[in-house]
Amino acid sequence: MFNFEQQQQFIKKANALTPQLKRWVVPIEKLATPVFDENVWQNYTMKQSDLQEFLSTHSFANGDSFIVALPETLVGQLAFRLSSLQGYADSPSRLRITLGELPQEVVFADKPYNGTLNGSWLQSEVINIDDLPMDVVLPRRYCCKYIRFDMIGVPRRINFDNIRFIACGAEDYLAEVDKSLSPILQEIDRASIRTLRNCMQTCFEDGPKRDRRLWLGDLRLQAMVNKVTYKRFDLVKRSLYLLAGALQNDGEVSGCVMERPYPRKGCHTHDYTMLFSLVLYEYCRDSGDWALGEELFDLACHQMQLMERFFEKGLFIGENDPYKDWFFVDHDLELDRQAAVQAQAIVGYNYLAKLSEKLEKSEKASAFREKVELLSKVARDKFYDSQTGVVVSGEKLQISYASQIWMILAGVLNPEEGKRALLAVEKNQSALKPSSPYMFHYLLEAWQICGDEEHLMELLEEYYGSMVKHGADTFWEAYRPEDPFFSPYNDVRMNSACHAWSGTASYFIRKGYLQ
Amino acid sequence: MFNFEQQQQFIKKANALTPQLKRWVVPIEKLATPVFDENVWQNYTMKQSDLQEFLSTHSFANGDSFIVALPETLVGQLAFRLSSLQGYADSPSRLRITLGELPQEVVFADKPYNGTLNGSWLQSEVINIDDLPMDVVLPRRYCCKYIRFDMIGVPRRINFDNIRFIACGAEDYLAEVDKSLSPILQEIDRASIRTLRNCMQTCFEDGPKRDRRLWLGDLRLQAMVNKVTYKRFDLVKRSLYLLAGALQNDGEVSGCVMERPYPRKGCHTHDYTMLFSLVLYEYCRDSGDWALGEELFDLACHQMQLMERFFEKGLFIGENDPYKDWFFVDHDLELDRQAAVQAQAIVGYNYLAKLSEKLEKSEKASAFREKVELLSKVARDKFYDSQTGVVVSGEKLQISYASQIWMILAGVLNPEEGKRALLAVEKNQSALKPSSPYMFHYLLEAWQICGDEEHLMELLEEYYGSMVKHGADTFWEAYRPEDPFFSPYNDVRMNSACHAWSGTASYFIRKGYLQ
Repeated sequence: MFNFEQQQQFIKKANALTPQLKRWVVPIEKLATPVFDENVWQNYTMKQSDLQEFLSTHSFANGDSFIVALPETLVGQLAFRLSSLQGYADSPSRLRITLGELPQEVVFADKPYNGTLNGSWLQSEVINIDDLPMDVVLPRRYCCKYIRFDMIGVPRRINFDNIRFIACGAEDYLAEVDKSLSPILQEIDRASIRTLRNCMQTCFEDGPKRDRRLWLGDLRLQAMVNKVTYKRFDLVKRSLYLLAGALQNDGEVSGCVMERPYPRKGCHTHDYTMLFSLVLYEYCRDSGDWALGEELFDLACHQMQLMERFFEKGLFIGENDPYKDWFFVDHDLELDRQAAVQAQAIVGYNYLAKLSEKLEKSEKASAFREKVELLSKVARDKFYDSQTGVVVSGEKLQISYASQIWMILAGVLNPEEGKRALLAVEKNQSALKPSSPYMFHYLLEAWQICGDEEHLMELLEEYYGSMVKHGADTFWEAYRPEDPFFSPYNDVRMNSACHAWSGTASYFIRKGYLQ
Repeated sequence: MFNFEQQQQFIKKANALTPQLKRWVVPIEKLATPVFDENVWQNYTMKQSDLQEFLSTHSFANGDSFIVALPETLVGQLAFRLSSLQGYADSPSRLRITLGELPQEVVFADKPYNGTLNGSWLQSEVINIDDLPMDVVLPRRYCCKYIRFDMIGVPRRINFDNIRFIACGAEDYLAEVDKSLSPILQEIDRASIRTLRNCMQTCFEDGPKRDRRLWLGDLRLQAMVNKVTYKRFDLVKRSLYLLAGALQNDGEVSGCVMERPYPRKGCHTHDYTMLFSLVLYEYCRDSGDWALGEELFDLACHQMQLMERFFEKGLFIGENDPYKDWFFVDHDLELDRQAAVQAQAIVGYNYLAKLSEKLEKSEKASAFREKVELLSKVARDKFYDSQTGVVVSGEKLQISYASQIWMILAGVLNPEEGKRALLAVEKNQSALKPSSPYMFHYLLEAWQICGDEEHLMELLEEYYGSMVKHGADTFWEAYRPEDPFFSPYNDVRMNSACHAWSGTASYFIRKGYLQ
C-alpha cells in the first residue's frame, strides 16, 4: 500500500494536470523613494514619482542606486534594457538587484542577515551583463512590489529603460470585486484575491517568495477561496495528487511537497496530516469529483492510523518537536498545543466518517464515528472547564484562542458554548492570541460556526483592514498588529508578504460557507 | 566610401565566416590549497590533491569554501552537480564563485578592488540555485585555471560532485610540439600555442578573460603564430572583415572591435591603425587570398591618409592622449612615442607600397614609396644619433628599446645599425625597457631582422622561460620579470594571464619568418 509505483502513478496524474502558466508584461512606471517616518508601519513609506522621466534624465555610475515600484505585488520575472551612454561599454556590467515585497527588504538591502531561515530566501541577485546594449531578462522568478538596482561594477555610465515585469500565474486576472461592498471590504477582498492569484502557479504555493511550495495546511485555505473565485479545481486535484505521490517513508503525507526539480516530500507536519481528510472531502464536495475521494480514500484512512501513536486512551500525548514530530498549529512557541491537536484529530476522524458515508462505506463510517465520540468525550473531560466555559490545555491549564477555536471546529463545543468560550478569551488579556493569519482564519471560521457573522465581519475588517491601511495589497504571512517588526524568523525581511494562508477574507466576504 | 552600407556588407561577410565553436568537457580532478611562500612568484603556490576524495568526504555549510584546479588554463563554462545531504533543501543555495587564471585572483577574492579598469572584469558570480539536486551550468564564459567556491547562503549542508569545465574554442587541440627541442623550449612552445588556442574563439580575442575582443595590434601577432600552427586563415579573414565593418565615423579602423551583441567599433588606437596595411598584406601573402587585399585596398590607403594630420613635413607631431588620440606603443606612460610612431607610419606606407605592387597598382606604389623615403629621411635626421648609434626620441632625447625596435622594423636602420642600436640599449641601464610582451615581441622581431637568431633565442628563452618557471602555462599580458606585482591597472588581479600578444614565441621557435 502506498508503494513507490503507486506514488509514481499519482505523480504522473499530477503532472498531467500541470497548468500552462499565463504570462503578461507589466510596465514599471514608478520610481520609489523611501521616506523614513516612525509613525508608519515598519518606518518607511515609498514616495512614488515618474520613472520614465527619471530614467531619461539620469545615467548611472558605480555606487549609484535607485528603486522602482510595481503597480501591485506581482510574481514573475524582471526584464529591462541596459545600454551605455556613449554606446561604448568597456567592460561587463555588474549590478546587484534586490527585490522586495515590502520596503524593508529593499531599503535595508545592505543590512547583515542573522535570521533563522537561510538568507538565500531574501530575493537578491548579482548579475553580470557582458555586452551592451542588452535586453536583460532575469531567469529566476520573484514575488515583489519594489526592485532596487545597485551599480556595483558598471562601465562609466549606463542607462536603463523599458524596465518591466513579466508576471506569471495559473490565472492572469483578479476576480471581480462586488462594488456594493464598503470601500474597505472591497480593498480587503481584492488583496485577498491577489494573494491567491499570486500563489496559484503550477500548484498552490504557500508564498511565491518563500517557501514556494505546496503546504497541506495552506492548501485547505486556498481551496476555500478558490471555490468562491477562480474555481480552479484542477489545481486542487493536482495538489492532492502531489501530496499523495510524495509520501514520507511510512506513508504519511508530507506537510509540504516540493515540485522541483521533481515532486518530492518535504517535512512532517502532523497537525496538517490530520486535516488531509478534510481537504479531500471539501475538494470532492466543491468539485463534485467523488472519484478522487474513492481513489485516495485508503491513503486518507492511513493518515489517522499513523496518528494513533500520539494518543493514549483517546488523549493526545504527543509533544511538539519541529525536528521530529512537528505539530505546527500556530507561529507561537509558547502555545500549549495539546487541546488544539486533540481537536484536530477529531476533525480528521470526522471528515473520514463523512467521506465514508458519502462513498457508502458504512462500516468504516461507524468506526470513525466511534473515534470521534471517544476523542470528543476525552476532550470535554480533559480540556473543557464548564465553570468558566473555556478550554484549557496542558499541565499549566493554558488558555489560548487556538484551543477554543479547534474545539469549536471539532464540534466538541456546540455553537453556544463556542461563542461563550470565544467571548471569554476576548475578555481575557492573558489568553494567547492568534500569532499568524493562519490561526486568525480559524478564529473567523469558529465565529462562523458559532453563527455570529456580525462579530466575524467586525474582526475581519479590523484585522485585514489594518493590514490594508499599513499598505498591504496582498496579505502577510505574519502579522501582529501591535508589533510591526514581529518575525517568526528573527528578521522581518524574511517574512512573506503574500502568503496563501492569509488570503481567506474573500471566503468570508463572499460567504463561501453558504455555497 | 566606407559608408554604412558597405560596412554592413563587410559585417555580413564576417558573419558568414563565424566558426562553429568546438566544445569539450574537461573533468576537474584537483583540489588546490594555496600555500604562502614569499619566494615564489606573487607569493602563492597551489598545492594540489585529489578532488574526488575531498568531495566524497566533505559537505559544505555557510562560510565554507574550497578551490579547485583545472589541468590547464582553459576557456569555457563551469558545470557541477549540487545536492543536499539529506535530499531535503529548505531554501535556495547561494554561492559565490570566483574564477581566476592565477592564484591571486582566487586567494584574494575578498580583497577590495581599486584598480583603474572596471572591477566587473574580475571573474566572479553570485548564483542562486532554487532546487536541489541540480546540475548547474553557468551561462557565462570564463578563462581560468582555478575556481573558488564560497557558500554564502546554503541550506544546511550541501554536496558537490562532477565539477567539470566545458571548454570551447575555434580549435580544441594543442598543435604538436617538436620533441627534439630542449624541454624548456617545448614548454614555451606549448604555452604559446595554448595562449593562441584559448584566444581563438569566434574571432581572435586579445584575452579570453579580458577584454575578449578583437584588437588590431594583437591580431597581427596572432596571425603570425596561426601561420605556423593552426592555419585558420578563415579566422584572420573574418577578423579583417570585422575591422572593415566597424569603422570609426571618419573611416578609421578601430583599435578594437567588439563582436557582441553585434559587431561594433571600439576605441581609436592610431599606432595600430598604421599597421593595418601590414596585417592585410601578411594575410594575403600567407593565405594566398589576394582578393581580400584588392577588396580592402582603398580602406587600407584611407588609413594612412587619416594619419597625415599627425605629421608636419614628414615628422610625427601627434601627442599621445588615450582619451582622444591614442598611440599605445607599449604599457608605459613614461615612454616618449615620437620616434616609434614615426617608424610605425613608415611601416604602414611600406606595406601599402608592397600591397600596391602585388596588386599591380604601380602609380600608387610609387606614391607610397615616396612617402616611405620622405618619412625615413626625416626619421634618420631627427632621431638617429649616428655617433652613439642609437635612436633618441622627443625633446628629452629619450633612449628606449621601443624607438630602436620600430626604426629597425621600418628599415630606417639597416640590420647592422639595428644590431648596434640594440646592443647599445642592452648596455644602457637607463634605456626604457619593453614593458609588455607586445613590445617584447617586436624586440625579438627586430633581432630577427638584424639576423642574430642566437641572440633572439637567448632572449626568448630567458623571457618566456622565466614565465614558465613562475608557473605560466599561458603567457601573460603584463610581465616585468623584476616586478611580480606590476599591473598596468593598479591591481595584479586585473591582468590577463592568457593574452594574445604574449603568444608569439612559437612563431620564432618554428621560424615563421622562413616560411
